[in-house]
Amino acid sequence: MENTRYQWFEEELRKIALLGSTAGLLAWDQETCMPRDATEIRAQQSGILSGMIHEMKTAKALQDCVEELLGDQTLDVYQSVNVKEFNRSLQKSLKLSKAFVEELTMVVSSAYPAWHEAKLKGQFEIFAPHLEKIVALKREEAKLSGYIHHPYDALMDDFEPGLTVIEMDSLFDQLQKDFIPYVKNIMNKPQPDDQCFRQRFDVNLQKQLGHEILTSMGYRFSSGRMDLSEHPFCIGIHPTDVRVTYRLNPNDLSEMIWGLIHEGGHALYEQGLNSQYWGTPMGSTVSLAIHESQSRFWENNIARSEAFWKFWYPKLQASFPNELGEVAFKTFYHGMNRVSPSLIRIQADELTYHLHILIRYQIEKAIIEGSLSVNEIPEKWDSLYKTHLGVDVPNNAMGVLQDVHWSHGGFGYFPTYSMGSFYAAQFYQTLTKSFPVDEWIEQGNLAPIKQWLNENIHSRGMMLQADALCKKITGESLNFAYFMQYIHNKFDKIFA
Amino acid sequence: MENTRYQWFEEELRKIALLGSTAGLLAWDQETCMPRDATEIRAQQSGILSGMIHEMKTAKALQDCVEELLGDQTLDVYQSVNVKEFNRSLQKSLKLSKAFVEELTMVVSSAYPAWHEAKLKGQFEIFAPHLEKIVALKREEAKLSGYIHHPYDALMDDFEPGLTVIEMDSLFDQLQKDFIPYVKNIMNKPQPDDQCFRQRFDVNLQKQLGHEILTSMGYRFSSGRMDLSEHPFCIGIHPTDVRVTYRLNPNDLSEMIWGLIHEGGHALYEQGLNSQYWGTPMGSTVSLAIHESQSRFWENNIARSEAFWKFWYPKLQASFPNELGEVAFKTFYHGMNRVSPSLIRIQADELTYHLHILIRYQIEKAIIEGSLSVNEIPEKWDSLYKTHLGVDVPNNAMGVLQDVHWSHGGFGYFPTYSMGSFYAAQFYQTLTKSFPVDEWIEQGNLAPIKQWLNENIHSRGMMLQADALCKKITGESLNFAYFMQYIHNKFDKIFA
Repeated sequence: MENTRYQWFEEELRKIALLGSTAGLLAWDQETCMPRDATEIRAQQSGILSGMIHEMKTAKALQDCVEELLGDQTLDVYQSVNVKEFNRSLQKSLKLSKAFVEELTMVVSSAYPAWHEAKLKGQFEIFAPHLEKIVALKREEAKLSGYIHHPYDALMDDFEPGLTVIEMDSLFDQLQKDFIPYVKNIMNKPQPDDQCFRQRFDVNLQKQLGHEILTSMGYRFSSGRMDLSEHPFCIGIHPTDVRVTYRLNPNDLSEMIWGLIHEGGHALYEQGLNSQYWGTPMGSTVSLAIHESQSRFWENNIARSEAFWKFWYPKLQASFPNELGEVAFKTFYHGMNRVSPSLIRIQADELTYHLHILIRYQIEKAIIEGSLSVNEIPEKWDSLYKTHLGVDVPNNAMGVLQDVHWSHGGFGYFPTYSMGSFYAAQFYQTLTKSFPVDEWIEQGNLAPIKQWLNENIHSRGMMLQADALCKKITGESLNFAYFMQYIHNKFDKIFA
Repeated sequence: MENTRYQWFEEELRKIALLGSTAGLLAWDQETCMPRDATEIRAQQSGILSGMIHEMKTAKALQDCVEELLGDQTLDVYQSVNVKEFNRSLQKSLKLSKAFVEELTMVVSSAYPAWHEAKLKGQFEIFAPHLEKIVALKREEAKLSGYIHHPYDALMDDFEPGLTVIEMDSLFDQLQKDFIPYVKNIMNKPQPDDQCFRQRFDVNLQKQLGHEILTSMGYRFSSGRMDLSEHPFCIGIHPTDVRVTYRLNPNDLSEMIWGLIHEGGHALYEQGLNSQYWGTPMGSTVSLAIHESQSRFWENNIARSEAFWKFWYPKLQASFPNELGEVAFKTFYHGMNRVSPSLIRIQADELTYHLHILIRYQIEKAIIEGSLSVNEIPEKWDSLYKTHLGVDVPNNAMGVLQDVHWSHGGFGYFPTYSMGSFYAAQFYQTLTKSFPVDEWIEQGNLAPIKQWLNENIHSRGMMLQADALCKKITGESLNFAYFMQYIHNKFDKIFA
């Protein structure tokens, strides 16, 4: 017998997802196609959809239905996951009043242009009053949402369900204890030359190469496309419509390569979701850290490895014989793994990247718990960059104003970037234990890797939360040791 | 004192327009960007938006508000137009039950693939059963909508408010009496050679040229963009976001030129609407015939004129010195105005085009009044092509199956194409009476023409219906004589 109550619940979720995915398309279009005069009308179009989605999600009828289904013993395991996970998200939404959400939306919408102007002029004061309001609201949000140990927990939970300061502190303690001394040691060694990436590279050939690499990763162009945008991103509208964007820098080949592969990793996750469950938690991604684990996995573990370039470098040389024909493999491979402290997160190498994240984590935690005020942030920022990376921040544009996240109210997002790398390393270790992964990669055979990720992660949807998923795949919870092991295996050799 | 009731009405209309314009973007994306696997999910996304728009438009609260406002003596003239015009459209919507609309939607959604297959295979039988259902529903729709003289009136009214068979018959009677003998006479004359268009033309140079021509017409690229698509179209999302598409045929320069200028004419109308009234009738286009008058005006009256090419041909020759350097101006200008009977409407020349429309009009009228059955259409089609154009239809793919319109249920659409040309000629006559239009055009100065259209047509929205607008601009109702006069002025010289 059909459970008509459950069917109705699922239909409502799919309607919400249809509007949500339409909003996704509006966002994609805005970054890739939209004429510049259309900013105002686009904001209104997105606004009305958000409002409708919120209304549908929090409608009394749906709330009642969910409550009823939570006690329904006849649901199968998939159905139970959908009800439970939707309810978790619903309960969070219900804790914030409509007035609160509207105020936050309003504050944020005027904060973005202020941040943009502040960054252009390098003047933190322009952004500060907006950030003050945002911080006040985010602290209020943490209170409204509720938390056990730390208010920042409530905010991280939006991006990484269940993540707490206790867990994150423990991870970053290990980072500080084991990883930072290792990285500092490497930073002091003579660095490989990476000039070979900084030549003139024909953009059409770059694009063609990017297309080939994505195809080889198993990205389906019949269910996606690649376009240029200022900041690369991936958007999953539906498993049959997952779009990536990238940058073409005629003077730096590396932006295209690792930017596109990173987004390709995200895209494989979105294309690999189970269409049958689309619109419900069982057809959704687990969390931001797991999402990021997929992009980092492909960007770093696979595509900055020696094995990967054994296959691809000869092709690259054939595409760019004048630029790379005479560049030795070792020069190329070591060049892409140069480790040096820098000011800008998104330009950081695979190792120092995590120091940028650590700094943001420490600052966000302090802001949200109230131990750091907004006007103290720039000084704190600069001093942490000196401590962890040994660099002097010349101005706020290259310092505290470099990231857009805070202007969107995105407190609690950054830590998931580092967690993604830690998960990636652990998944990679499990995969390599059972399979001849390096051999596959050297032969350009990426299909079995994609298939393994499809089966173990992508197709499972939200069946398991991040920690449970990690246990299921690797036999244990997230363990920082695997990241250290991966780093040693790779960088000990390069910096021998 | 603010009229809060009217304000609410206008806000509702704007919300509907926000969803409608979002649906427009989905449609644009589908034709230009969408990955091919996403057809199914896109249909669902568009479907849910259509449903919501219909619900919002026909909501009881809005109906009540409109009824109240219809009797409100305090409204200004703009507000009255908005209430009156919205009500007209609302009353039409209300005549069709939800069940009827859903059935039509369902029938149409399976008819399109059937038509597509039928056209590919040239087999009318594949499409016939679907067309049977569509015709039955459209006849039913005419009955439900109501009409005074002829059921086809009710269908034409959807595209051209107020248009009747009486009026259309009268126009086509004049076409048959004056125009057809003229065209037949020309068709029998020796035709200019148009081989110069059928050479290899670099597509990037074509694109650049198209961009220049659109810019010169006054199309704002900051509020629009041009993309490739299988069938050229223009979509107005908002005056700040009006997009055109076009074709690049490396072996035929004419497809790009007149296709793009045609869509550019539509686009100038959409960009020229008054943003202040966006979402309401005062910020909307009058009718399909008036829309088409704008595209035909630019495509034919302007861009197939001698004056236009006096300015642009030297530029064209500079872009394509090998292909056109040695081609005399007269050869080029006469070549683009060749008149010869053909089988395919969208490839027809400026004159015989209207015979294609006449045939469709005669068939649609007969189908809807019930004097022609679906299985008799192909024979009727072929015999009318023999009568009017003197051509033998070799197969149904090149005959009755060539147009997509019927598969969408679009009965009553075709006549507006011819009316557009008639209106264009009358507007053109009025414009040239008062201004040195040829001089402007020869100097490449199209700005005052665009400005005249902006002021007299675009910015007025639906203030006046088509006939009243025509009277206001030209001093009289649509008069076929101006079209004949324009044709004589131009073609008498070419075929002297």
